[in-house]
Amino acid sequence: MLSILAERFGPKSVITDADTIEPWLTDWRGRFHGASPALLAPGSTEEVAAMVALAAEHGVPLTPQGGNTSMVGGATPPEDGSALILSLRRMNRLRSISAEAGLAVAEAGMILANLHASADGVGMRFPLTLGSRGSCTIGGLIATNAGGTQVLRFGTMRALVAGVEAVLPDGSVHDGLGALKKDNRGYSIDQLLVGSEGTLGIITAASLRLVPALTGRAVAWLGLKDPQAALDVLRMLEGQTKAIEGFEIVPGDSLALVLEHIPGTRSPLDGQHPWHALIEATASSDRDEPPAALLERLLAPALERGLVKDAVIAASEAQAEAFWRIRDSISEAERASGPATQHDISVPVADMPRFMVEAAKEVEAAFPGVRASAFGHLGDGNVHFHVRAGSRASVDWYEREAPAITRLVDDLVTAASGSISAEHGIGQMKKAELERLSSPSRLFALKAIKHALDPQDLMNPGKLIG
Amino acid sequence: MLSILAERFGPKSVITDADTIEPWLTDWRGRFHGASPALLAPGSTEEVAAMVALAAEHGVPLTPQGGNTSMVGGATPPEDGSALILSLRRMNRLRSISAEAGLAVAEAGMILANLHASADGVGMRFPLTLGSRGSCTIGGLIATNAGGTQVLRFGTMRALVAGVEAVLPDGSVHDGLGALKKDNRGYSIDQLLVGSEGTLGIITAASLRLVPALTGRAVAWLGLKDPQAALDVLRMLEGQTKAIEGFEIVPGDSLALVLEHIPGTRSPLDGQHPWHALIEATASSDRDEPPAALLERLLAPALERGLVKDAVIAASEAQAEAFWRIRDSISEAERASGPATQHDISVPVADMPRFMVEAAKEVEAAFPGVRASAFGHLGDGNVHFHVRAGSRASVDWYEREAPAITRLVDDLVTAASGSISAEHGIGQMKKAELERLSSPSRLFALKAIKHALDPQDLMNPGKLIG
Repeated sequence: MLSILAERFGPKSVITDADTIEPWLTDWRGRFHGASPALLAPGSTEEVAAMVALAAEHGVPLTPQGGNTSMVGGATPPEDGSALILSLRRMNRLRSISAEAGLAVAEAGMILANLHASADGVGMRFPLTLGSRGSCTIGGLIATNAGGTQVLRFGTMRALVAGVEAVLPDGSVHDGLGALKKDNRGYSIDQLLVGSEGTLGIITAASLRLVPALTGRAVAWLGLKDPQAALDVLRMLEGQTKAIEGFEIVPGDSLALVLEHIPGTRSPLDGQHPWHALIEATASSDRDEPPAALLERLLAPALERGLVKDAVIAASEAQAEAFWRIRDSISEAERASGPATQHDISVPVADMPRFMVEAAKEVEAAFPGVRASAFGHLGDGNVHFHVRAGSRASVDWYEREAPAITRLVDDLVTAASGSISAEHGIGQMKKAELERLSSPSRLFALKAIKHALDPQDLMNPGKLIG
Repeated sequence: MLSILAERFGPKSVITDADTIEPWLTDWRGRFHGASPALLAPGSTEEVAAMVALAAEHGVPLTPQGGNTSMVGGATPPEDGSALILSLRRMNRLRSISAEAGLAVAEAGMILANLHASADGVGMRFPLTLGSRGSCTIGGLIATNAGGTQVLRFGTMRALVAGVEAVLPDGSVHDGLGALKKDNRGYSIDQLLVGSEGTLGIITAASLRLVPALTGRAVAWLGLKDPQAALDVLRMLEGQTKAIEGFEIVPGDSLALVLEHIPGTRSPLDGQHPWHALIEATASSDRDEPPAALLERLLAPALERGLVKDAVIAASEAQAEAFWRIRDSISEAERASGPATQHDISVPVADMPRFMVEAAKEVEAAFPGVRASAFGHLGDGNVHFHVRAGSRASVDWYEREAPAITRLVDDLVTAASGSISAEHGIGQMKKAELERLSSPSRLFALKAIKHALDPQDLMNPGKLIG
């Protein structure tokens, strides 16, 4: 098959040089390693379709890859070298953009930061953003239904995808780029592909929703008694404005770790508080209330009645960035302080405050010496629940303890009707846990759909449900 | 199987009396007729699950039914009497409602108007609404991804469903009622069930998003040169406010038919205009600009530069209702004036103005004597394209001409990258056209998914793709 590929598509699209392939065999955190004899880099949807048809004919598995920023090993080929990597990075064009229609059509390999810039160029904004925006791609973001820090207002990738172009496992091309606002011709193939992790076909382009550009933002940092107070503040704000875009909860010990390990950080408030919230409010028109004034007006009564213990609104863009830097540095600070297991989980929003506190207690009781704490997207019912080794932990703590800790956290999440994967997907990392904890109806549906669309199990083998 | 059902579930849940079944064998417009030996009326999800499992065991097809308001024969059992009707109407409870969380959990048989009232009772609103709100049910609205007149701002049912509870064809229960805001455990089963028309399982309940209650609304009626001017006005408004909830386009001849056939109607404007638009703006807080003032402020420049020829803002709620009554009476007025074929279609929003004009010309040229015109949800790229018989048409005009007219309209829509079903679904009526006009990729995916989840083809046989 490799010789057919090389002949038909040429050296630009079919790479067999081991050194060039090497960086794409391992995930960015270095946890998953694979092997592959070739990296396919098609330059067009037609090339992808021809490659997929050829792979189907020869029974050769394909591992699609965008920016290779998966948190769960979702883009790493299998270890046995049986699959070819199919990289979308050459397909990185913006096919069209219209401020009037509020739509952009981007190819799968376009990097998120470049889409941000393109939208900005026409006076609009693509609101979804996350830490890896400089390397993650549109195709990968759709295939994993990515989240990030602005989900509260605009939703996950699912809500921002108006239509998808994809090559299905039989080599046929699904064209949803017309972005019809209403289309009831049966099951939504576009929505089925969102979050499918490359296991049902290869996303080649997408029509994406844009929103008006920002005219201003304000960032506040709050000191709070507990997570319930944080949710109460959020509900109070949401009852009075649509302008809240970010609402992140940060426990006191996460802040302490950041201050200890991340140079140049300082606490936004003078006193100590057991919990904190970072709030971002925005405006997208001169007619909108200025965000700083809005936050001041809405937070004042909460301070007065003691729901908020203390609060500060960033006085400058630099200070706003400094507040966000604390939030964004938590994982890095934790890594500097020792090993930890990390769990991207969700439960119903109303249940999250109790869950954060009680699950941490249960984990600490079951694994003496560890410290469990959760931070993140409270308003989405999604936190990153991390369990850190105690100071006297052995060097092989992670290898010895992580599987049992993960199982306990996942059991607690499942008992709370939550999800063991809120925004990172399943990939390789959570595949066994998905199988262990899913209801019979979910497993039946996932397996039936996978087998129906990809009967040879050639699309991203070993991930999700294949 | 009937005797087993009767014994296990009793006479309340299993009805075999022909007179009681009779009204549910025909669709509300009287176009589709079926037969069935029994109507199952389960009172709980457990009963639905047991009935579906029994049906799977015995190989007996089920036709799910809500309010029986399908426009495409989607809820009428097959003519051969092979299927049992499974009515969800007894499952009509509101399981929970929370203004704070902005969520309601309603059973499938709950009538839309009752959900409106319940939301109103807690100071919130369920925004989706349509003509049959007094009889259509939540389950049916989800199964058909219903649209209506408020889609512009809040989307179709798909956007309002936070999670679904459903019995899958194997009798297992999918429980998505936790309404997790983020959940990346593979393909979204909830989204797959939205718009599946009962062919992949029986929706038994749903978690639905609520929005803040209205504090006011204003309705304007515009005279316009052509559909492009209407779209230009809409884009101008949407660029400056989020408050536009309804934007309906009405051609001059539709207005004339309403004035001629519907008692008590009068033209909102004095002069004659080839096209009209009805605009509804709303407010949901005292801090929002009063909608009438907003419309006046934003429409004034459009009037000045001639984009809008004339405009009037309803001076009272009664006048606002009168404007809407014109829009809502178009189909009735057309029926009074003679036979017509009706086509619920969509194309990309930006292409709709041209499509409305050119497709009408093509149809009128191909079928001399007919009058073609389109009205409806311009901002959604969705119009109801109607072709009326000429005054000298024979009595069997509909039977003789409708199939060929439908094929031409569907061909034009498909050539414009549109959908032959924007909001009504496929049901029985559009099944052959879906098969004729879908891309190979769409047919492959629809059939593969259907066969995988319902291998015996027992769920709503003869509809959509089964």
